[in-house]
Amino acid sequence: MSSYQAPLTDMRFVLFDVLGAEATFQRLGYTEATRDVLDAVLEEGARFTETVLAPLNSEGDRKGCSLDQATGAVTTPPGFKQAYAQYVDGGWAGLTSPAEFGGQGLPHAAGVPLKEMIDAANLAWGNFPLLSHGATEALLHHGEAWQQEVFLKPLVEGRWTGTMCLTEPHCGTDLGLLKTRAEPQADGSYTITGTKIFITAGDHDLTDNIVHLVLARLPDAPSGSKGISLFVVPKVRVDRDGNTGAVNAVRCGSLEHKMGIHGSATCVMNFDGAQGWLIGQPHKGLMAMFTMMNTARLAVGLQGLGLSDRALQNALRYSRERLQMRALSGAKFPDKPADPIIVHPDVRRMLLTCKALVEGGRVMGYDAALQVDIAQHAADAGEREQADALVGFLTPIVKACLTEWGVECTYHALQCYGGHGYIAEHGMEQLARDARITTLYEGTTGIQALDLLGRKIMQLQGVGLKAFLAQVSRFCDEHADHAALAEFIGPLREKATQWQQLTMRVGKNAAANPDEIGAAAYDYLMYSGYVVLAYWWARSVATAEASAQSQAFKDDKRATATFYFARILPRTLAHAAAIDSGIGGLPSLPVEGHA
Amino acid sequence: MSSYQAPLTDMRFVLFDVLGAEATFQRLGYTEATRDVLDAVLEEGARFTETVLAPLNSEGDRKGCSLDQATGAVTTPPGFKQAYAQYVDGGWAGLTSPAEFGGQGLPHAAGVPLKEMIDAANLAWGNFPLLSHGATEALLHHGEAWQQEVFLKPLVEGRWTGTMCLTEPHCGTDLGLLKTRAEPQADGSYTITGTKIFITAGDHDLTDNIVHLVLARLPDAPSGSKGISLFVVPKVRVDRDGNTGAVNAVRCGSLEHKMGIHGSATCVMNFDGAQGWLIGQPHKGLMAMFTMMNTARLAVGLQGLGLSDRALQNALRYSRERLQMRALSGAKFPDKPADPIIVHPDVRRMLLTCKALVEGGRVMGYDAALQVDIAQHAADAGEREQADALVGFLTPIVKACLTEWGVECTYHALQCYGGHGYIAEHGMEQLARDARITTLYEGTTGIQALDLLGRKIMQLQGVGLKAFLAQVSRFCDEHADHAALAEFIGPLREKATQWQQLTMRVGKNAAANPDEIGAAAYDYLMYSGYVVLAYWWARSVATAEASAQSQAFKDDKRATATFYFARILPRTLAHAAAIDSGIGGLPSLPVEGHA
Repeated sequence: MSSYQAPLTDMRFVLFDVLGAEATFQRLGYTEATRDVLDAVLEEGARFTETVLAPLNSEGDRKGCSLDQATGAVTTPPGFKQAYAQYVDGGWAGLTSPAEFGGQGLPHAAGVPLKEMIDAANLAWGNFPLLSHGATEALLHHGEAWQQEVFLKPLVEGRWTGTMCLTEPHCGTDLGLLKTRAEPQADGSYTITGTKIFITAGDHDLTDNIVHLVLARLPDAPSGSKGISLFVVPKVRVDRDGNTGAVNAVRCGSLEHKMGIHGSATCVMNFDGAQGWLIGQPHKGLMAMFTMMNTARLAVGLQGLGLSDRALQNALRYSRERLQMRALSGAKFPDKPADPIIVHPDVRRMLLTCKALVEGGRVMGYDAALQVDIAQHAADAGEREQADALVGFLTPIVKACLTEWGVECTYHALQCYGGHGYIAEHGMEQLARDARITTLYEGTTGIQALDLLGRKIMQLQGVGLKAFLAQVSRFCDEHADHAALAEFIGPLREKATQWQQLTMRVGKNAAANPDEIGAAAYDYLMYSGYVVLAYWWARSVATAEASAQSQAFKDDKRATATFYFARILPRTLAHAAAIDSGIGGLPSLPVEGHA
Repeated sequence: MSSYQAPLTDMRFVLFDVLGAEATFQRLGYTEATRDVLDAVLEEGARFTETVLAPLNSEGDRKGCSLDQATGAVTTPPGFKQAYAQYVDGGWAGLTSPAEFGGQGLPHAAGVPLKEMIDAANLAWGNFPLLSHGATEALLHHGEAWQQEVFLKPLVEGRWTGTMCLTEPHCGTDLGLLKTRAEPQADGSYTITGTKIFITAGDHDLTDNIVHLVLARLPDAPSGSKGISLFVVPKVRVDRDGNTGAVNAVRCGSLEHKMGIHGSATCVMNFDGAQGWLIGQPHKGLMAMFTMMNTARLAVGLQGLGLSDRALQNALRYSRERLQMRALSGAKFPDKPADPIIVHPDVRRMLLTCKALVEGGRVMGYDAALQVDIAQHAADAGEREQADALVGFLTPIVKACLTEWGVECTYHALQCYGGHGYIAEHGMEQLARDARITTLYEGTTGIQALDLLGRKIMQLQGVGLKAFLAQVSRFCDEHADHAALAEFIGPLREKATQWQQLTMRVGKNAAANPDEIGAAAYDYLMYSGYVVLAYWWARSVATAEASAQSQAFKDDKRATATFYFARILPRTLAHAAAIDSGIGGLPSLPVEGHA
């Protein structure tokens, strides 16, 4: 079985030293978000995830969820229910929700390390509370007062959980095709009828009620994506005064058999005239749903990060223990029957790849979360606007890169184990299987790439990119004479300039032919992610040097940054060449025809 | 469930048109290996694999193998035994084995398309007959006459299967550490005692006997890898006259629970004073085992190829059927509710990546097999020697690249399905799980990389590389004035030159510090693989143009080659940068310490 230890030292370094989160929180008016409070959250979070969630991970994979076909009731794996009760009792559910609804009122970014720990400890379990946050956001921003009163409090306290019911058998990305119907009733409610698939935590035994946020069409709805409305549909009916009543006409029809996250219930949900309530304006449901989706996308990015870190931790330990062959330059441990495999450069290549992507990715993911707080709470409108642009720009990068790197890191970490990595008992293959979902759900990597290039760069004229580049430029200027950083600042500045030029070339091509956006999108997104990471690595070294961290810590950061710039950042060369080849390098394939 | 159709058109194109295999076979004296015979083998092989093996693949994954703990007997999934009987009845087992032992005497390369089909249709099933070939090779080259008489015939006919028993719990790559003991007996036999792990097809119900090839130490053995001997240990005892007797003291102790290839029995084998016979010279077992390993490595490369092709076939079909969103440049099928996703450039990027790696990889894999035939049967000693150098050089590239690309292609193909790819019923996730073993067994990618750079380039002074580069150079010269090929010939020549220069730089670094070999090995191997593929793509276009293939076929080859040169070959830029950063870009990690 793979083990997990929350990386508190690096989490603190990222949050407090690199990103200066404490000062930002104070500036944003989160007076209670002091270093002491945040440290306590980190330590208690580590205890909860390491001792309660992590031990359930392997059995959850083996046993999975089960469905009682007669009742539609889903049973979660052994221990999941008890762990969830502890999660609620510990006040974790509402950590970053508003105090007026029973939350702890901490900033969004303060919840992010906890999220990473939960995902690393037990991704499948983490999917049960995950979408409560999205539902909370949607209700906070678009719900009527009585809806907030009735639904928000139990969600925030964790007594109920939430879902996002978007996908139907014939439409995932293309929600304009959805068919679920909503009929208005005399009492102001609606009856919802249709089938939704891939509903994470659609049913389970952790709570008494489940709050489904459902996209459906009103009778007078325009066709396509402009005719979609959002409804709240509880598993157990609730009236406007919050009284629960009969079971609603919604039930789980089947559970999907999946490659991984077996402990997470992925449900087909049948709505058969279920009672629901409209959230926000008619036909404006997709916009309300986007509120949930952005939060969910950043959260899925953290899933990739958490799994990568757990995979790395185990691969590091195994590579230190496993004795096999001698170093090419001569035995390093002649008293042992062989050298530990960590001495072999190729094993180090795999470990350092994970380390560079995990630690750099952590800064990237946490920074995006901090921008969410700034976008919502900065006193200055200009600062809010800029942060909002950064969030929009960074969200697809964080989601896609951290999950693609999650697939990559779990691959390398498993590879370090050799054949043993393929065997279930070591737990490495579970991490790889679990990671595989993250580049698919909440928008595939291809969809994130289109969001970045088509919307954030082209439609919004790259306002987020400009803000980010200004930040990079400022940092490079500040450290222009810092000899100890010269090996990073020069290449970073050069790469940032190339990024800008590349963006202009892509923009020019796309203006001539919109298909150029699709041809460039994926490589543009990955290119961007590697430059963003180069910036965070350079800043991590600069921050470490100036900090009170140990010399070993500083050396470690510098060595990993050196590796990153030498061996990972050059991937941008391949991505740039692919982008520059344009749609001409991507010939069409016959739509009809033999395979 | 994923489907499979043997790609006979492309197989024929590769074998006969690009590689000119028929003429080569005739030249090597395989008079019976005519086009007619080979065509019949392809067609019958397609029928067998498509209709017998492929339908068992999904259930084999779900049911897996089971072990009777009381007897140590392994039961294979439903249908496997019947399919194996058909395989034996069809004469497939001995297709490329010598006629004197009951084989059909066809050349090695003639069996390779069948191998690809078997792996694509049902990788887990394919692992049962797989190592019979290795055992056959070892006995042919190193066995005494009576051993050949007794063991070879049933292996060739398929009445018995073979295994390779190398790995022990504490040693995989580093066989010098192995502990299994062999004690000489008065009758000339040996008693073998020890535990072997990861033994593919170690026990099963397909045949009455199993021939284990086992590495063990004699009492007077020097320590390390120079003290290892090879023994043949049948499951059921056999005397020198071929009479079978009592069950031998070898049994399966447990089956591994694995990420994939559930239908393949991966056994812990306990040898408890089992009767065995020495193969070849005492203490020279590792060399004899290498005979088996090279064959097995090329075979595992084909596994990656087969899975990639099956994944691609299904992703292509799905991408043509699945309607989602409109093309960015405007609706392509306005009468449908949405366009098929194959019109989206990013979906094409994934499909074309698979297509370029599969079709190019097929030439690479088949060519290596053809070199094996030339190395063994060419009349001219110089030609044999050169082919032998090419086999040595190409084997690690074929094994590592085709399997790494297998992981990549099954990733892309699954990704084309979106969330549906993660669901078991579509069969795409099984392909991804099955593919994951191929970069691990028969030597990890890292081990292949060391074999290529440390042994084939450095120790053997790149004789195989030189032969390959000469081939590339000849081809470029021949087509120097061929305007229709200019877009490929120029970049190919340039890349080949850079490859040569890179090799010299690596060699110089390595001479100064042997750790530089380890630092460069993986990236050097992948770099090499991409250049090799560029050559085969250029040749594929040249061959297609000059052939009687349809215009659609020619266009298809050219389009895929264009894609390859534009969007895949640039990966060499990233690999070259990583190589050139040397050991300095790969800092050491503390052997002791926190994760």
